Amino acid sequence: MQSNNLNLEAFFQHYRILIDRRLAQAIRPSAIAPSLHEAMRYSLLNGGKRIRPLLMLATVEATDGKPELALDAAAAVELIHCYSLIHDDLPAMDDDDLRRGKPTCHIQFDEATAILAGDALQTKGFELLANAEQFSETTRLRLIQCLTQASGPLGMVGGQAVDLSAVGKRLDLLALQQMHKMKTGALLEACVLMGAYCNQLSNGQTVDTLRRFAADIGLAFQIKDDILDVEVDTATLGKTGGKDAANQKPTYTSLLGLHAAKVKADELRINAIDALKSIGLEHSRLAEIAHYVVDRNR
Amino acid sequence: MQSNNLNLEAFFQHYRILIDRRLAQAIRPSAIAPSLHEAMRYSLLNGGKRIRPLLMLATVEATDGKPELALDAAAAVELIHCYSLIHDDLPAMDDDDLRRGKPTCHIQFDEATAILAGDALQTKGFELLANAEQFSETTRLRLIQCLTQASGPLGMVGGQAVDLSAVGKRLDLLALQQMHKMKTGALLEACVLMGAYCNQLSNGQTVDTLRRFAADIGLAFQIKDDILDVEVDTATLGKTGGKDAANQKPTYTSLLGLHAAKVKADELRINAIDALKSIGLEHSRLAEIAHYVVDRNR
Repeated sequence: MQSNNLNLEAFFQHYRILIDRRLAQAIRPSAIAPSLHEAMRYSLLNGGKRIRPLLMLATVEATDGKPELALDAAAAVELIHCYSLIHDDLPAMDDDDLRRGKPTCHIQFDEATAILAGDALQTKGFELLANAEQFSETTRLRLIQCLTQASGPLGMVGGQAVDLSAVGKRLDLLALQQMHKMKTGALLEACVLMGAYCNQLSNGQTVDTLRRFAADIGLAFQIKDDILDVEVDTATLGKTGGKDAANQKPTYTSLLGLHAAKVKADELRINAIDALKSIGLEHSRLAEIAHYVVDRNR
Repeated sequence: MQSNNLNLEAFFQHYRILIDRRLAQAIRPSAIAPSLHEAMRYSLLNGGKRIRPLLMLATVEATDGKPELALDAAAAVELIHCYSLIHDDLPAMDDDDLRRGKPTCHIQFDEATAILAGDALQTKGFELLANAEQFSETTRLRLIQCLTQASGPLGMVGGQAVDLSAVGKRLDLLALQQMHKMKTGALLEACVLMGAYCNQLSNGQTVDTLRRFAADIGLAFQIKDDILDVEVDTATLGKTGGKDAANQKPTYTSLLGLHAAKVKADELRINAIDALKSIGLEHSRLAEIAHYVVDRNR
């Protein structure tokens, strides 16, 4: 089947199944530490949206590759994302009891198991890439370099540290943007770049432009999350709504107001599509994803 | 300078400095998340014994390589070890206040920062290997494969999960040994294997024998740790002594008694040296390390 004959919803559904299958294979249960594996499976295979791996596969498709060949890289990013959610939900961090409509990992199991499950999922992410023999050695290393950089102290983990230190403080818009660039933007950008790397694109105008596209939709994604946190009830969201306000966390909606936040998200969508236009990809799956990011209701 | 002209203490001293320098380079401070980087530096650059990276460098030397060329791989293993210590010390896990004579990371900073610092150190370990351009791509990937496997759910993290679930239970000797094989043995074995890989040895009798050697001294290392926990006071140990007994954790000394534990450690040392003999390395640095592991007093 040609993936680009599918509409976005069908593309998502089709590849979500393949991603979930690959994730389940990656963390097969072990008789040696059953509780650890159970916690890993519980948090990883919980019907998540898989937006990050889908963004990567969409990039593969848009740059004329076969998404099926990039499933290991897509699964690796989801493993990293999932580990970060488990740790972020811990009592010492965001102290969240609910994730995707179910008890968070440390509620379902216990804190120690949740910490270790997160640790193990991170390790598995890099292991998967190192063993992905369908890619050349050069590509595998490039994928690991990209993912470690995006998820490490100058990326995702650093952003979470800045976020925690900002609770109760008055951040300005620039500081908030810097934090989100690290906390969520870096990994979303990595998804797009890794999609290009899976296709043997490694530099030049296409990759530079895709990076700009990714930065725009990454920020739009976060703004939309803040909007949803204000507008949508807990049941629909599958996580505790209104929590940012309750925690006095700075958000785009608290800084800009709801209306201006929506305008900003729309501007970013337009910029993202413009970037795609400049490399002839304005009718690709990536354009559909840009619309999805801003129009989604959960 | 030829490293093999040094006695063991001089070898340790010389390479500890180089390892510490490489570690400091690997986690340069960032203006963006200063508290995170401070916590990473605090836990990583704290005068640790560096036994794992030193074991790796000794393997490089014993197999006729230059230890200086393997410093990135040595630092990567220490990054992984250090992340695991930070997380193991957390209140939800071993709840330890003291590490190497100083407050543990979550005491000095806070729990959230300690969780993130551990996460970031793990990421940095794999990043360092992926970027170690002095190695061929094949070697870099082999190093990452080895380290992910040893530190993941079937290795170090899995062992910690088994250890936690064993508190207050009566483990038999075989179960205790299986737990330690994963929790500490797997990473020590990886040090020896990675040392061989740094030298372009990847299979055959030498590597198989080195693996046996590593398994023996890995177990001896753990038994010696249990002996020290009983015999040595907190000030000398730099961590809380007698803690395993207080926590009703099964140990070699509690299962075998102190005397039989010492006999067992000695047997393992003899086996380890015998393994080295079979590949003509009984006068190498690795033999000195086998003696060190069993004779050390902290």
